[in-house]
Amino acid sequence: MSTLTSHKVAMLGTGLIGDFYTMTLHSQRGRDRVVVAYSRSEERGRAFSERWGIPRHTTCVDDAINDPEVDTVVVGLPNDLHLETIGKVAAAGKNLLVTKPLGRTGAEAKEILDIVESAGIFGGYLEDLVYTPKTTVSLASVKAGAIGDVTWVRAREAHPGPHSAWFWDSKRAGGGAVIDLGCHCIEIARNFVGKDNRPIEVMAWADTLVHPIAAEDNAIFLVRFESGAIGQIEVSWTFRGGMDLRDEVSGTEGTIRIDHFLRTGLELFTTGGSGGYVAEKAETDAGWLFPVGDEVSELGYVDMFSDMFDAIDAGRAPRETLYDGYVVNTIMDAALKSAQTRQWEPVEVAWRGGTAASIKRVPEYHQGRTVVKRELLPDGRSKLILNDPETGEITDVVL
Amino acid sequence: MSTLTSHKVAMLGTGLIGDFYTMTLHSQRGRDRVVVAYSRSEERGRAFSERWGIPRHTTCVDDAINDPEVDTVVVGLPNDLHLETIGKVAAAGKNLLVTKPLGRTGAEAKEILDIVESAGIFGGYLEDLVYTPKTTVSLASVKAGAIGDVTWVRAREAHPGPHSAWFWDSKRAGGGAVIDLGCHCIEIARNFVGKDNRPIEVMAWADTLVHPIAAEDNAIFLVRFESGAIGQIEVSWTFRGGMDLRDEVSGTEGTIRIDHFLRTGLELFTTGGSGGYVAEKAETDAGWLFPVGDEVSELGYVDMFSDMFDAIDAGRAPRETLYDGYVVNTIMDAALKSAQTRQWEPVEVAWRGGTAASIKRVPEYHQGRTVVKRELLPDGRSKLILNDPETGEITDVVL
Amino acid sequence: MSTLTSHKVAMLGTGLIGDFYTMTLHSQRGRDRVVVAYSRSEERGRAFSERWGIPRHTTCVDDAINDPEVDTVVVGLPNDLHLETIGKVAAAGKNLLVTKPLGRTGAEAKEILDIVESAGIFGGYLEDLVYTPKTTVSLASVKAGAIGDVTWVRAREAHPGPHSAWFWDSKRAGGGAVIDLGCHCIEIARNFVGKDNRPIEVMAWADTLVHPIAAEDNAIFLVRFESGAIGQIEVSWTFRGGMDLRDEVSGTEGTIRIDHFLRTGLELFTTGGSGGYVAEKAETDAGWLFPVGDEVSELGYVDMFSDMFDAIDAGRAPRETLYDGYVVNTIMDAALKSAQTRQWEPVEVAWRGGTAASIKRVPEYHQGRTVVKRELLPDGRSKLILNDPETGEITDVVL
Amino acid sequence: MSTLTSHKVAMLGTGLIGDFYTMTLHSQRGRDRVVVAYSRSEERGRAFSERWGIPRHTTCVDDAINDPEVDTVVVGLPNDLHLETIGKVAAAGKNLLVTKPLGRTGAEAKEILDIVESAGIFGGYLEDLVYTPKTTVSLASVKAGAIGDVTWVRAREAHPGPHSAWFWDSKRAGGGAVIDLGCHCIEIARNFVGKDNRPIEVMAWADTLVHPIAAEDNAIFLVRFESGAIGQIEVSWTFRGGMDLRDEVSGTEGTIRIDHFLRTGLELFTTGGSGGYVAEKAETDAGWLFPVGDEVSELGYVDMFSDMFDAIDAGRAPRETLYDGYVVNTIMDAALKSAQTRQWEPVEVAWRGGTAASIKRVPEYHQGRTVVKRELLPDGRSKLILNDPETGEITDVVL
Repeated sequence: MSTLTSHKVAMLGTGLIGDFYTMTLHSQRGRDRVVVAYSRSEERGRAFSERWGIPRHTTCVDDAINDPEVDTVVVGLPNDLHLETIGKVAAAGKNLLVTKPLGRTGAEAKEILDIVESAGIFGGYLEDLVYTPKTTVSLASVKAGAIGDVTWVRAREAHPGPHSAWFWDSKRAGGGAVIDLGCHCIEIARNFVGKDNRPIEVMAWADTLVHPIAAEDNAIFLVRFESGAIGQIEVSWTFRGGMDLRDEVSGTEGTIRIDHFLRTGLELFTTGGSGGYVAEKAETDAGWLFPVGDEVSELGYVDMFSDMFDAIDAGRAPRETLYDGYVVNTIMDAALKSAQTRQWEPVEVAWRGGTAASIKRVPEYHQGRTVVKRELLPDGRSKLILNDPETGEITDVVL
Repeated sequence: MSTLTSHKVAMLGTGLIGDFYTMTLHSQRGRDRVVVAYSRSEERGRAFSERWGIPRHTTCVDDAINDPEVDTVVVGLPNDLHLETIGKVAAAGKNLLVTKPLGRTGAEAKEILDIVESAGIFGGYLEDLVYTPKTTVSLASVKAGAIGDVTWVRAREAHPGPHSAWFWDSKRAGGGAVIDLGCHCIEIARNFVGKDNRPIEVMAWADTLVHPIAAEDNAIFLVRFESGAIGQIEVSWTFRGGMDLRDEVSGTEGTIRIDHFLRTGLELFTTGGSGGYVAEKAETDAGWLFPVGDEVSELGYVDMFSDMFDAIDAGRAPRETLYDGYVVNTIMDAALKSAQTRQWEPVEVAWRGGTAASIKRVPEYHQGRTVVKRELLPDGRSKLILNDPETGEITDVVL
Repeated sequence: MSTLTSHKVAMLGTGLIGDFYTMTLHSQRGRDRVVVAYSRSEERGRAFSERWGIPRHTTCVDDAINDPEVDTVVVGLPNDLHLETIGKVAAAGKNLLVTKPLGRTGAEAKEILDIVESAGIFGGYLEDLVYTPKTTVSLASVKAGAIGDVTWVRAREAHPGPHSAWFWDSKRAGGGAVIDLGCHCIEIARNFVGKDNRPIEVMAWADTLVHPIAAEDNAIFLVRFESGAIGQIEVSWTFRGGMDLRDEVSGTEGTIRIDHFLRTGLELFTTGGSGGYVAEKAETDAGWLFPVGDEVSELGYVDMFSDMFDAIDAGRAPRETLYDGYVVNTIMDAALKSAQTRQWEPVEVAWRGGTAASIKRVPEYHQGRTVVKRELLPDGRSKLILNDPETGEITDVVL
Repeated sequence: MSTLTSHKVAMLGTGLIGDFYTMTLHSQRGRDRVVVAYSRSEERGRAFSERWGIPRHTTCVDDAINDPEVDTVVVGLPNDLHLETIGKVAAAGKNLLVTKPLGRTGAEAKEILDIVESAGIFGGYLEDLVYTPKTTVSLASVKAGAIGDVTWVRAREAHPGPHSAWFWDSKRAGGGAVIDLGCHCIEIARNFVGKDNRPIEVMAWADTLVHPIAAEDNAIFLVRFESGAIGQIEVSWTFRGGMDLRDEVSGTEGTIRIDHFLRTGLELFTTGGSGGYVAEKAETDAGWLFPVGDEVSELGYVDMFSDMFDAIDAGRAPRETLYDGYVVNTIMDAALKSAQTRQWEPVEVAWRGGTAASIKRVPEYHQGRTVVKRELLPDGRSKLILNDPETGEITDVVL
């Protein structure tokens, strides 16, 4: 006799992200199901529901949210619709899961956060990339001390540009590549440096190099955290060669490199006989291709939804909360501002996190001098580079 | 109101494979659950049940099989216990899932197959490695024609040797590295060349190079299939550096390389601060390490159990049946015999599959000669290597 | 009867770089030879000369420079000795090859440049990393248009810190990781964006995160070039795991990734039996190691010296001139200033290069709207994202 | 005043290998020069000489060999011309360098060897692939004990087939892919297991799977050496995706993986704008490409010729002698015979090497039982797998 809980989901939005979310929920021995889909278009709603075996679809968002069977609403709509829609979910008292980014600005995200917290409903922030199996394993290693104190996180997401029109419209999206991709990278960096590590300030470059749009199609920015660690964010809508989704982490005792998408141990050369879908945002279907095994698993969707529903069942917070989404928005605000002012800009955030200690320096001494570096020579002797703490004079000695 | 089916499982065996199986079933939003564990040791049974939140455990295999809540029995016991145990599962009329290899010999596997088919119960062969996401994607590409006709499959599994004593005892296991690892590799090769592609004969080398045991600790063998394709199987219990689990496939129009475990896009360097479990059969915990993200997913366990339970629910055969397990055993018989007789040995199998066409040769002609090769020169001209079909004379011409 | 020219070299400096340079010159069928070595220490000079089969050594730099057999002087001395030493080489009228960086500041580099140009001697800037075979092949591809217009170059050099004391002393070196490693990365970026592409301004972060020194041990900076392309420079003296020497280039039509040192197709796992020198700056001698085949070739030394001596013989400029060294210094000046002022700083350079066109945007139109993106749908139809040039409205259409 | 020796070379043959050899000799600061080229075709000889700046060319092989300036003759001709041509070089008393394979059979190779040894001239076997920088570094590691005793060498060379017509004609070549590519792989294996390790017997599969020719286009064979080590040779003329040139070595204490050509740290994606030559045997010029930096260096040509000329100058044997070429031919004879007889065939060689000890087994004992495996458990305890030397009973114990 089964006593398993199974959540019934309203999926708002039937674009690419709706497909990914529903594929995840309905794949393998999927326990939780989408029971109603909302699309502004009757045609797309019907096609979506047929594709995924969803019993009902509607063009009325209120009907979807208030569907009596539904206990959880997934907001997979364009950014400019988040605030209004979430208000309705809060009013309905349903569990809320929101796609990234939470809002178009920190202020909008804060408004959303306040609404949800006032209503007392469950709120989960669907930042999938911190849930990838590789990221989860890496975070566990970092927490276990495998790489010492984190000094630097590079998070990079680059591809030839998004599929839907509204992403390219900065009025609806809130920006360009920074808003679309930067939110992923920022949250990856926050997870690695530690969520109690306050983001202090941001220095950004952004430009529109290739596409005929108003928003930036490339940006690079540095986030300086309280510990001194740096998050290096690289986003691009003009990358050629597929989807470049890589993270690198350096620490005082080690380093991590993650490639999520392009070099994952599966390589296929074809002269071009079969024109199938190889992977999200692949650019060619002949030559050397690098497919991903289980895309929704590798991109973190599977573990993300597991965490969300487990959190609802257990009455606990999920790993990624709406507050996290809000912090991400404030960092993007600072990045977009810095790209204009051309100087470091502070992150203006209502901080709830703790404080983080500075990156450790454990001074070692040799005859009253600080050891800068200790090196093993081929002949077995040790060479020390020494710094005189009073004069700053640098010398070396072989022991 | 949930109408999900959820299977209740008896797990026979609490060794490493029992851990992997149960971890898989109970992970993420696991719908199917282990409700009773059987171990010959009360102590190990108790620890196992506590580790995985299993309500009951027993040292009586009959009690586990006949537990009234149980509808499915997983046999994760040493090879020499398969035949007897499966007889009991068949008598109880429960669904049967058996770990690899099915038997110690083709004859034993046939006996098991007959028992299960007579009883009319569901039988699934738990060959996880053909279910890895990378393998599944690759098989789909091959079926879609991406690499043309398959000519060669290399399947390699190598590590420093198994964890439990009985593996090393050829009387209990039925052999050494061939039986332990060869069964995986053979079934990978069969999937890529097509299961209707009859294995004709085997040529094998096997030797005990390093370990003080009677069974082989290294073997290499070639399986020739009806189409002309070759399966190249490499197994070793003396590999240093972790678990080397790679497949390569060549076809007339392409090639595939799969690395399941050592180079999958996650790389970690550590000076050694954290002594955690990195991955199955990793040999070090400092220096450059190559952890796997989600081990049970990457090794195919997740998709394997999904297929098994979906097959039970749908009343269809799973992707891997006990008949497949039997074919694998007959190929291993031929390999072990060939290692003794030092010549090709036929595969003696009661064949139920179909027939496979030979690897395609599409002859192209130029002025009455067969085109051996067509090459594009840097200056844009084409160079043809030609074979005179009557004289066998080889010439070239530039067009 | 041989008519080969063979240059006779004075090697000033017997540190690690002197070893690399001499190893290169004397390796394989080395045609050009070091005939005298200068070291401040009699002991190190003697050991060096014995190591490399050099006939003479001296502790007097003037004697080395003015050695009558010598036609070419290699300056491999600490940065603070470049200016004075180069004055002597100029006075002697010998061919001059100088290790990187040219000076400690742009002003010092300019002074050196002026001295050399006044003397009319040959001057070569020994920036090896733009001469690596991979870089040379990549530059040829870029010039041939393989990746379109370059938009971004990431050049990264990171390791646990230099071997000699003087590098750590910013008074002698002129700075820390920026001066030591940034000069390489900047010149790599300049080569990829084109040397006629003027560096306009720099935004930098630099910090001393780990080592007990005054100079920066980590820095990241962006160089904006006239075309709009960005050079992203990452340097670190606190990296763990060996020497991380990678470049990435993105263009409007392609992308390049180069790994010079850590993942080059040679992988070795060892339980630690042999304690040999594996590669420059490797950190361990057990576990997975990634040696480099021919270090001096992979690091560009071989092709660099070939170009230098061929240039001397042919009376032409080498690929890397002292002017290039000067430009690099001015960019580092801007980086170090920006790290202080926390805003973009202009590059103050006496520019001799040409001008570079902006990154191309080739507008495509569809019914009066600009095509933002063209995407092939799985069903073979094309989806266009369109931008109304008057209203900025973004729409899509499927054809 | 230069006292450098510089060899003057006659290049016999102006095909692809003649190009590679001459490119190598004339590249960088090349000290040794080709002074005369021989081609059967006046036109090809002239084009070749112009391409490489060679002063003279001829269609008379005797004129080339006896050219008075020439001290060294490189035989880069089709296999069926080796014996006759080498007789002429021996008669002329010149230094001889011969491309691979030495002969078409062991008998022919022996005849060549006898002629050269009788004449007392220098003879070098131009097996480039054992001279690649990666191979040289790896061989040094193996000799230093880094991987313990070698148990297995996989050497693989696979590409879509050779460029010249005569390769495809087994009468002229002496066979197909085995003769063309197997000779490389065999000598790689011999170098790793040690040249004193006598090849005992060979088991081979060969087939013509794709091309319309009489010779084999695919083969796999195992060479068993005296120590028990296995050389696993894989050759193919039907590989798609470029040139697959990889070696793997396993030992009792480690493992080595070498990728010479396809994954060497240089990756380029292009939409196809520039149609240049990317690398030997690359198949596409768009999509992801994997060029090689310095092809003649990576393929070993540079270090091979350095060794040859240094050996001549020093009056010592080169690393690869004609005797090595002869041994390789005898192993290929056994392979081709085994492919016919379908059983192991002995290697019939006039052995001059020494003897090799068996792969080491260092037995460890625990309370009278042999330790099969020692494993560290997560809780820090050790688990031993034990073998009772009298009964063969396998047990385990946790300490």
